[in-house]
Amino acid sequence: MTPEPAAMPAGKTLLFGVGLGPGEPDYMTVRARDIILRADRLVHFCKRGRRGNARVTADAVIAPDSAREIELAFPVTIEVPVEDEGYTGPIAAFYDEAAARLATEMEAGRTLAVLCDGDPFFYGSFMHLWRRLAHRFPTEIVPGVTGMAGAWTRAEAPITWGDDVMTVLPGTLSEAELTRRLRDTDAAVIMKLGRNLPKVRRALQASGLIDRAIYAERATMAGQVIARLSEKADDEAPYFSMVLVPGEGRRL
Amino acid sequence: MTPEPAAMPAGKTLLFGVGLGPGEPDYMTVRARDIILRADRLVHFCKRGRRGNARVTADAVIAPDSAREIELAFPVTIEVPVEDEGYTGPIAAFYDEAAARLATEMEAGRTLAVLCDGDPFFYGSFMHLWRRLAHRFPTEIVPGVTGMAGAWTRAEAPITWGDDVMTVLPGTLSEAELTRRLRDTDAAVIMKLGRNLPKVRRALQASGLIDRAIYAERATMAGQVIARLSEKADDEAPYFSMVLVPGEGRRL
Ligand SMILES: C[S@@+](CC[C@H](N)C(=O)[O-])C[C@H]1O[C@@H](n2cnc3c(N)ncnc32)[C@H](O)[C@@H]1O
Ligand SMILES: C[S@@+](CC[C@H](N)C(=O)[O-])C[C@H]1O[C@@H](n2cnc3c(N)ncnc32)[C@H](O)[C@@H]1O
Repeated sequence: MTPEPAAMPAGKTLLFGVGLGPGEPDYMTVRARDIILRADRLVHFCKRGRRGNARVTADAVIAPDSAREIELAFPVTIEVPVEDEGYTGPIAAFYDEAAARLATEMEAGRTLAVLCDGDPFFYGSFMHLWRRLAHRFPTEIVPGVTGMAGAWTRAEAPITWGDDVMTVLPGTLSEAELTRRLRDTDAAVIMKLGRNLPKVRRALQASGLIDRAIYAERATMAGQVIARLSEKADDEAPYFSMVLVPGEGRRL
Repeated sequence: MTPEPAAMPAGKTLLFGVGLGPGEPDYMTVRARDIILRADRLVHFCKRGRRGNARVTADAVIAPDSAREIELAFPVTIEVPVEDEGYTGPIAAFYDEAAARLATEMEAGRTLAVLCDGDPFFYGSFMHLWRRLAHRFPTEIVPGVTGMAGAWTRAEAPITWGDDVMTVLPGTLSEAELTRRLRDTDAAVIMKLGRNLPKVRRALQASGLIDRAIYAERATMAGQVIARLSEKADDEAPYFSMVLVPGEGRRL
């Protein structure tokens, strides 16, 4: 459908982009489970020296097995915000090298399961590998339960009712932009929170949504925190955190 | 978290709202599969005289078993648009009666799995039962892969990149409102297409997005259709159809 990759070659599927869901291993799909059980290699993104979150999710199904693992460790520069100069270069080089490494594996006939948090095609790092590889190697994507679905489930907060409009916003947007968009939606999900939380909090205040906002940290994972944002005292938020503003549309 | 239902009682879980995913049975979660295998009753919404879609998805796991099935058949009035007079009354009465029927089952100690298309808390009919029952009976929600994730997967179209804003729009909104919101987003999903398609098409044209729009019908189900909307000749769209406008955000 999409112009990139242009067309997928025929033949035995070698590349699997596997959504593992929000963290709770039982929220993995049956298809994801089958694929990670039998793939020749398990590929995951991580920070240098740490196992990645998706790999931890998979532990319930497959014990660590160094012969099967391929770790793609982000260079230190991933800590630099993407707006800063010098970021795009190193990170693009990282994806180029990672893609080359995976291509070598697939040229040797090995099947690769790239483990993805949530759904692979929703703000996924895997997408940057996919656009480099899917036109060269037969590929299958396995959709997953998104992190936000895990979050609204655990918050016991249906996100959209009736004709509600839902807006998904990266916390990286400017305060003005966040405020403007929050004022103009029925339901919202604010992803990529982290150190953007003070700004996001101000935007929620300015848009009058602060009292409806729910903070969800590591939803469905070990160490889950779900709280009204107005009752969260500090502005600490890890990578796996988001804010939900449930819609208030038509109740029947 | 949310004010309704106020608080869930403790005790053995009796009510399960089970997301079955977009249609492909292997996109069911492991948890959903476990629950539908052992629930005393399988509850599903349907049109009078027809099996509901979620029940068809579950066929791969559990054969039809009349002793276990509870069908909640929508009254004929569901065909009337919700804006029309007389709609809300009958449909609220339908949910009241359905909730009463399920309450009787649970009072007799039976566990109920309510089968939901996609994710239960994302525009789900189940939410109207949940708000009537979850404060009275211990409840578990199982999140699911959404229909839209099934659709963008099969369209081979990652939906959001980088800092893309994604807007989910019900096709029931007015043409002016659809146009305005489509002009102001990076990525979009238009749900509840059906007979709203001609209007949605005009809004996509007016907002300059028609060439990026993908039509997805029955994504991951039998009879799936995925096509560029601009190449779809007619304006027929069934209940299970949507339009995707993939984002064009930062490629790394
Ligand atoms: C690069 S995006 C990847 C999203 C993922 N593909 C998905 O479908 O959820 C990472 C962001 O997702 C959000 N996220 C994903 N899973 C989460 C969870 N279980 N709890 C809280 N936030 C989560 C956080 O906002 C995080 O910054
Ligand atoms: C009442 S909403 C329920 C959404 C569901 N809870 C979910 O998570 O996808 C019904 C709408 O979802 C969309 N939908 C759900 N599954 C779909 C699929 N497999 N293919 C196309 N559209 C789908 C259609 O737009 C339909 O009108």
